[in-house]
Amino acid sequence: MELLSTNVCFDGEHRRYRHYSATLECDMEFAVFLPPAAVARDAKPVPVLYWLSGLTCTDQNFMQKAGAMKRAAQLGLAIVCPDTSPRGLNLPGEDDSYDFGTGAGFYINATQQPWAPHYRMYDYVVKELPQLVEHSLPVTDQRSVSGHSMGGHGALIAALKNPGRYASVSAFAPIANPSECPWGQKAFSGYLGDDARAWEEWDATLLIPTARERLPLLVDQGTADEFLETQLNPDALAAVCETFHHHINLRMHRGYDHSYFFIASFIDEHLEHHAQALGLR
Amino acid sequence: MELLSTNVCFDGEHRRYRHYSATLECDMEFAVFLPPAAVARDAKPVPVLYWLSGLTCTDQNFMQKAGAMKRAAQLGLAIVCPDTSPRGLNLPGEDDSYDFGTGAGFYINATQQPWAPHYRMYDYVVKELPQLVEHSLPVTDQRSVSGHSMGGHGALIAALKNPGRYASVSAFAPIANPSECPWGQKAFSGYLGDDARAWEEWDATLLIPTARERLPLLVDQGTADEFLETQLNPDALAAVCETFHHHINLRMHRGYDHSYFFIASFIDEHLEHHAQALGLR
Repeated sequence: MELLSTNVCFDGEHRRYRHYSATLECDMEFAVFLPPAAVARDAKPVPVLYWLSGLTCTDQNFMQKAGAMKRAAQLGLAIVCPDTSPRGLNLPGEDDSYDFGTGAGFYINATQQPWAPHYRMYDYVVKELPQLVEHSLPVTDQRSVSGHSMGGHGALIAALKNPGRYASVSAFAPIANPSECPWGQKAFSGYLGDDARAWEEWDATLLIPTARERLPLLVDQGTADEFLETQLNPDALAAVCETFHHHINLRMHRGYDHSYFFIASFIDEHLEHHAQALGLR
Repeated sequence: MELLSTNVCFDGEHRRYRHYSATLECDMEFAVFLPPAAVARDAKPVPVLYWLSGLTCTDQNFMQKAGAMKRAAQLGLAIVCPDTSPRGLNLPGEDDSYDFGTGAGFYINATQQPWAPHYRMYDYVVKELPQLVEHSLPVTDQRSVSGHSMGGHGALIAALKNPGRYASVSAFAPIANPSECPWGQKAFSGYLGDDARAWEEWDATLLIPTARERLPLLVDQGTADEFLETQLNPDALAAVCETFHHHINLRMHRGYDHSYFFIASFIDEHLEHHAQALGLR
């Protein structure tokens, strides 16, 4: 693991690392915020919130724009931000569009060529990266997961598919039912093939009926989000949660859009939600 | 004044505008954050903090990265971020370097060709922009000023040269004595000519002896700032303040660098400093 940079921030540290991912068979970069409690002289390992970003993002969007570090520093919560896909593999078509290939890994394990060996972002963010982080940094194996848009989808499926792995889950404007929207259909047919039965295990709305753990879902959604009608479909998720008695707190915020200005406005409440589940307050 | 975009943020609004600047003889863009108190149904005009950004920045760096809006929303304080220079004028050499021309107006009034008619960022940020903002938006004529690096220099000279115009001033890692550092010497010789006597009225350290108003200076500086030794020179400013009994609160922060991670860490304290001077708390 190669340390790329360190910035002191709120008396903690924002660091960027590069490492070789055996899962993805390529180098990857990620960012971590370590709160003062994890880097002070009398430091103790702290729990981690994994933040999964949206289409086109790198590990830096959340770190620079969410305004999350102040509260994370106070709470004693580390934040890890992976990238959103492998990069620079020179796979045919990887840079043709913003919503497929580079920057658009969708947090699933691809089965179709040429994506299959590398585009396994689900295994990377759920298994390999936490293992690496917990082995190399002053953090515990207590985990929570959150994300935005494509990353909100990623956070939801990571939690729903892994009972006991996360203490809590939340999402901002998630792609809640990817099998039924253009972004999801493009990604799933490209990475998983055209048989929609193979998509079901990667769609939060379709995972709710068989979820073995009833971790409550905290979902924030802006009513002025430009993708709400065509891509996000929180109503489908809320409806299936209602049917199957899965607790969801879907908060519709009047006037808010899809940007980081929306995330910044509510991130502190998500951090507190996770801190409580992690026993930090 | 053309509204380019609006984002709801902390129940206030982040807006971007374009307008024709008579001072700069070109179109300019700026951003404003209006707190809930200024946009609610029973809104009242609110005071304004003018934020002057550093080299290469646009109106967006602070708005996206400083994490300032939460506290500004709570305090009822508007924030206006101008751009850092005219753009796209096709002046010879305007895009040759990051520290002169585009993105590097230095908040002075150029006297040398070809910059003279357009590069008058001092008059723009001190006079024209506040006049426009106070005429067009729900804000009062109570003003404070702050900034970072080149913009910290801009904030200091704006306050020192205009007794009564600002209720308070602060700066992050300002170019405190530009006549004596490479960034300042390049900018001043290019915009003002080689006679250093013409530089004196644009250098905070040289303005302190004759300052007619003793507005206290709040200055934050990171000790790990990569430009501290070569460009910033807060010690020169502190020394002249000591000699002339001008109050300065120079806070050296161990381990912090020149980035927005540093600004984010202390922006709330600056907002509170300004809010107090503006009668908001």
